[in-house]
Amino acid sequence: MAKELKELTSRAVDYSQWYNDLVIKADLAESSAVRGCMVIKPYGYAIWEKIQAELDRMFKETGHQNAYFPLFIPKSFLSREAEHVEGFAKECAVVTHHRLKKDPNGTGLIVDPEAKLEEELIVRPTSETIIWNTYKGWIQSYRDLPILVNQWANVVRWEMRTRLFLRTTEFLWQEGHTAHATRDEAIEEAEKMLHVYADFAENFMAVPVLRGVKSPNERFAGAIETYCIEAMMQDGKALQAGTSHFLGQNFAKAFDVTFVNKENQLDYVWATSWGVSTRLMGALIMTHSDDNGLVLPPNLAPFQVVIVPIYKNEEQLNAISEKVKEITLKLKKLGITVKYDDNDAKKPGWKFAEYELKGVPVRLAMGARDLENGTVEIARRDTLTKETVSVEGVEQYIDDLLKEIQQNIFKKAVDFRTSMTREVNSYDEFKVEIEKGGFLLCHWDGTAETEELIKNETKATIRCIPVDGEVDPGFCMVTGKPSTRRVVFARAY
Amino acid sequence: MAKELKELTSRAVDYSQWYNDLVIKADLAESSAVRGCMVIKPYGYAIWEKIQAELDRMFKETGHQNAYFPLFIPKSFLSREAEHVEGFAKECAVVTHHRLKKDPNGTGLIVDPEAKLEEELIVRPTSETIIWNTYKGWIQSYRDLPILVNQWANVVRWEMRTRLFLRTTEFLWQEGHTAHATRDEAIEEAEKMLHVYADFAENFMAVPVLRGVKSPNERFAGAIETYCIEAMMQDGKALQAGTSHFLGQNFAKAFDVTFVNKENQLDYVWATSWGVSTRLMGALIMTHSDDNGLVLPPNLAPFQVVIVPIYKNEEQLNAISEKVKEITLKLKKLGITVKYDDNDAKKPGWKFAEYELKGVPVRLAMGARDLENGTVEIARRDTLTKETVSVEGVEQYIDDLLKEIQQNIFKKAVDFRTSMTREVNSYDEFKVEIEKGGFLLCHWDGTAETEELIKNETKATIRCIPVDGEVDPGFCMVTGKPSTRRVVFARAY
Repeated sequence: MAKELKELTSRAVDYSQWYNDLVIKADLAESSAVRGCMVIKPYGYAIWEKIQAELDRMFKETGHQNAYFPLFIPKSFLSREAEHVEGFAKECAVVTHHRLKKDPNGTGLIVDPEAKLEEELIVRPTSETIIWNTYKGWIQSYRDLPILVNQWANVVRWEMRTRLFLRTTEFLWQEGHTAHATRDEAIEEAEKMLHVYADFAENFMAVPVLRGVKSPNERFAGAIETYCIEAMMQDGKALQAGTSHFLGQNFAKAFDVTFVNKENQLDYVWATSWGVSTRLMGALIMTHSDDNGLVLPPNLAPFQVVIVPIYKNEEQLNAISEKVKEITLKLKKLGITVKYDDNDAKKPGWKFAEYELKGVPVRLAMGARDLENGTVEIARRDTLTKETVSVEGVEQYIDDLLKEIQQNIFKKAVDFRTSMTREVNSYDEFKVEIEKGGFLLCHWDGTAETEELIKNETKATIRCIPVDGEVDPGFCMVTGKPSTRRVVFARAY
Repeated sequence: MAKELKELTSRAVDYSQWYNDLVIKADLAESSAVRGCMVIKPYGYAIWEKIQAELDRMFKETGHQNAYFPLFIPKSFLSREAEHVEGFAKECAVVTHHRLKKDPNGTGLIVDPEAKLEEELIVRPTSETIIWNTYKGWIQSYRDLPILVNQWANVVRWEMRTRLFLRTTEFLWQEGHTAHATRDEAIEEAEKMLHVYADFAENFMAVPVLRGVKSPNERFAGAIETYCIEAMMQDGKALQAGTSHFLGQNFAKAFDVTFVNKENQLDYVWATSWGVSTRLMGALIMTHSDDNGLVLPPNLAPFQVVIVPIYKNEEQLNAISEKVKEITLKLKKLGITVKYDDNDAKKPGWKFAEYELKGVPVRLAMGARDLENGTVEIARRDTLTKETVSVEGVEQYIDDLLKEIQQNIFKKAVDFRTSMTREVNSYDEFKVEIEKGGFLLCHWDGTAETEELIKNETKATIRCIPVDGEVDPGFCMVTGKPSTRRVVFARAY
């Protein structure tokens, strides 16, 4: 029964079901009793902790500090920035009361009508408003700038259709909110964080990303420019993995945050915000995993190596455990994380399947014969290949192997994305190609109307206008109007 | 002006005002636009991050894993455990709607009456209910036990009177929730975590704590036994710094969580929960700080050493900076965190006052003459004493000094607590002594009525029944009934 329970729907049969199966069966997360909210299970959360730790280090290296702002936002704050409220008012959790009481006509609890709030509170969907209201008290002069603050927090957006990690009512994220004396400095900050995100995605998640800016239609509500990283999933759909916004003076004006500049004149403060969320977990899972389960990049795996003993009796187990202890010590010295699974209640075959499902990058198996021969069997999760190597120097072998796996899965993802990326020159061709998925590089006339038409007819959106794209004049595939460069279309999560 | 702004109300004049001044002026936290919710500023949050990191390490060393559960709790869940609902229903933030819309009669936003939730959601005041509802799906057999899970999260309790860190509507905390096959194992876990908290308080916060159990009146809503650590503040009031609860089978019964035990019989699962919060920041501040500002224990200071250059021109500054770089490198090698403040816009005197206010344990000052003599001036925050020492070997000197400061402030706090702890044998004496503050060790007849009477007449509560207290028979100071041992009374935060 255990075996069947672990079996995944294959990607070819139903990609979406495969994803759900995998998230559940690899013990990453599950749905909760609260509509659209998930429980992140210990194994899934351990990956998120690795993601957090690396990003937090990168944020601090680039001069940011963490802080914490209230969960609740007064309703009136949301209305201050016109586009912002447009973007978030329709999907808010609204707190209206602060007390329950016993139902006088029954046994349960009812909301106490006498505990109605004077002003309703919104559970933060994002924190620009409450933060800029706070910054007003922190900033008087250019000497108080820049403010480079990040917050790790939970946020709530009342999504109608939810999927574990990809789109949940509550999710975990970080949101950077910075304040600057000049426009140029704010733009530089927004771009810097785009590159931090891209570096993290590529070097830790092994997920190749396009770096670009959003078309006006797809911008964050309240932003002047939204920078983004876009990844390509195995089913040919794009996934927005992180965004960084240049907010201009919009929030400073909405919350009246001014400062005296070096020229002794009063000016509004310039702003950025930037965030990534537990959605990254979805990108990680969908980029690398296969029909056998999760494939984790060594740089983010909760443990990089699992060791399974194969034994017939306790004497053999003790001898193997002794040898494993030596190997483990040497691996730990190299900074490699190891789990030794000597649980007697499970058979080796069950364990092999379990760690394959959980995506542990390297599995070592050691039996009585290995002990005699001074060898150990090493299995790679990414290629599912095995080989027997000498215990002597195995720690260096594994260290190299982990680096190779990290590179290999990144290269595989890059090759896949390359195979899924092509130039398309007519709208007829576009309609055919979009059904096959992938990134389509097309000329577009730059208007919201054309973008909207394409979206309505094909469900494809402009994922980004690449920041490093070449100038390549052409004509819009829909209207034939001139275009200076190709933009990236795809269907997206 | 800057000087005045930094001045604190002295503790003798108004302890409560001193605390508020200190929290604000040392840039730890401030009130927000949302009633009872605070903004934790970067310097305050950096201390909280140190607290989190150490506790998280201790939790993992004792076998716990982190996970994440929903922010919202369906209203009906709260009612399941009778005492639990009694404890929390009166102070809940209630989400009733999931959308705002434009006011048809105005310019603002109103709650959309069509977006009313079928069942109201409570913003978690604590997570026993949602977690035990989840554990139901995780536990079938004794093989699935124990579950040792912790969550770092924000929680909301609608407090009427709030104070920064000590009592806020929203606060940050960790909540451990464990599930066990036997009663004994659960009790062992609850006690283990009590000792983890006590070790943390004493060895990292340098805050001495009493370890005890609560009287039934003061127990957590839904617990069979509540263990606690209690600290003594400088104004003679007690502060509950952490609690660990043995929950028996109460939540398993409320959420029908059963398992097949080793004897192949169905039984309810045994539970514990335990938590500490940003309230610890209040304990930390109030235990050590003085009229000059914060005093931080070296083990939790965001930076342990600050170095201030004293110079007349850029040439001097460069020479000093060169020497400081050497010292800093050596300190970092010893794991000591250092900030070098060469900001030219501020005078050394301003910096001295600033870092005193912020409680940096050790301050180094280096001027031109120090450079000539190969010396540096070292100031201790705890004693406010200064001395000039040789740069040669200064890193080891500072390493020792930090350890000494950590011990010294702990010892000072222990001595203070000792001076504030006394046995009281009559209720008349109690009424006099309680006005002077401190822990009063008294005989009590063990009834809720007597406890209630004392509370109503003197505002003192039983802080704990010490776990390591000796058996010492006597007679209740109020009723004269027999008592087996003294319990600890105090007025408390």
